Amino acid sequence: MKSGVVLVSGGLDSLVTAAIADKECDLTYFLHFNYGQKTETKELESFRKIVNHYSPKDILISNLDFFKMIGSSSLIDESQKIRSYHNINQLKKDSKPNTYVPFRNALMLSIGVSWAEAVKANYIYIGAVEEDSSGYPDCREVFFQAFQEVIDFGTANNDPLIVKVPLIHKSKKEIILLGKKLNTPLELSWSCYGNNHIACGKCASCFLRLKAFQEAGLIDPVKYE
Amino acid sequence: MKSGVVLVSGGLDSLVTAAIADKECDLTYFLHFNYGQKTETKELESFRKIVNHYSPKDILISNLDFFKMIGSSSLIDESQKIRSYHNINQLKKDSKPNTYVPFRNALMLSIGVSWAEAVKANYIYIGAVEEDSSGYPDCREVFFQAFQEVIDFGTANNDPLIVKVPLIHKSKKEIILLGKKLNTPLELSWSCYGNNHIACGKCASCFLRLKAFQEAGLIDPVKYE
Repeated sequence: MKSGVVLVSGGLDSLVTAAIADKECDLTYFLHFNYGQKTETKELESFRKIVNHYSPKDILISNLDFFKMIGSSSLIDESQKIRSYHNINQLKKDSKPNTYVPFRNALMLSIGVSWAEAVKANYIYIGAVEEDSSGYPDCREVFFQAFQEVIDFGTANNDPLIVKVPLIHKSKKEIILLGKKLNTPLELSWSCYGNNHIACGKCASCFLRLKAFQEAGLIDPVKYE
Repeated sequence: MKSGVVLVSGGLDSLVTAAIADKECDLTYFLHFNYGQKTETKELESFRKIVNHYSPKDILISNLDFFKMIGSSSLIDESQKIRSYHNINQLKKDSKPNTYVPFRNALMLSIGVSWAEAVKANYIYIGAVEEDSSGYPDCREVFFQAFQEVIDFGTANNDPLIVKVPLIHKSKKEIILLGKKLNTPLELSWSCYGNNHIACGKCASCFLRLKAFQEAGLIDPVKYE
């Protein structure tokens, strides 16, 4: 019996990661965060649809108030505007995009590990992507390797708890194709950094997603403005 | 100009750590957590008194709901009773005490790092103690060394952010003596795992504290039942 906690934001990468966990584990636990992100409502809506689809053993929706208090990212700070992009070079020039939320993955992983330790899970899954991503320092493989050490030293169960980052070296195109192969309901995911009813098609996240669907030779089932 | 974020629970160790940070830094930021611990009210009361004493540049009180949802520790789970101890051998036999909250230090550090990155702090202080502690896996130096790597890989500021664990190899007795030397207001701290108006004197935390004051040849200024 293998079990895994999965961080499910409701975006494309976390959805395909959930599909992988669903295939590899006998039991899954889906974890979602509300952290004052502008897309909170849309992401939670996607999360609930994904839960309905995969029927995990348990879910946890955790409210993190302090990211909103800290500010410092356009994803959560109302005074900062989310940038629009028209081509890939413009996006690449942003070494640290203003959608960067400081140390977010460490925090979310920590909560996931805490839950995983309590339910004695074998794995914790996170859908981070190093290549083709937006250059966040906590999306790199070295970061997760270091975090594995922290888990090894900082937890108390007899069986090891392994961090799984199955998409880390995949391109968005490969993720979409893998999603297709696993019959992932891609239409349930929400990637846009905005919070409108329909995705904007212009923010960094929409931009990379649309480009990847095009490269994969597929039509994105999500509607755009 | 050096600045540091300090995790201040309101206990003895975090209070002495705050005194050290106050001495080493030009600016401090005090961070406190409510996580559904039974001592939430008493700890917050201590935190506010400590803030009044040291006047940090800013404070953050973060509410963490999910530890309560996860359960699994007698510190937060109402169905589990906090154990009483009468001698040190009885306490040592508990390799993983039932007051253990899974991966708590990783989570609290992650939030601290997130804030430290946003305010561009140089240090993050945590009052963890390896020796003379209650055997939590995330109170050991190897854990913090591993966590430093996670910070190095997972943050984006130009200047490094250093984890400081100044008490890690001190005994409780040494911590009390250091506190005295730094004119720390030890009477403001709250160590008891219970939530009564007066400390119980019987839980693991009270037991170790009283023993240490005795060894230091000092009278604990806190009142006991």
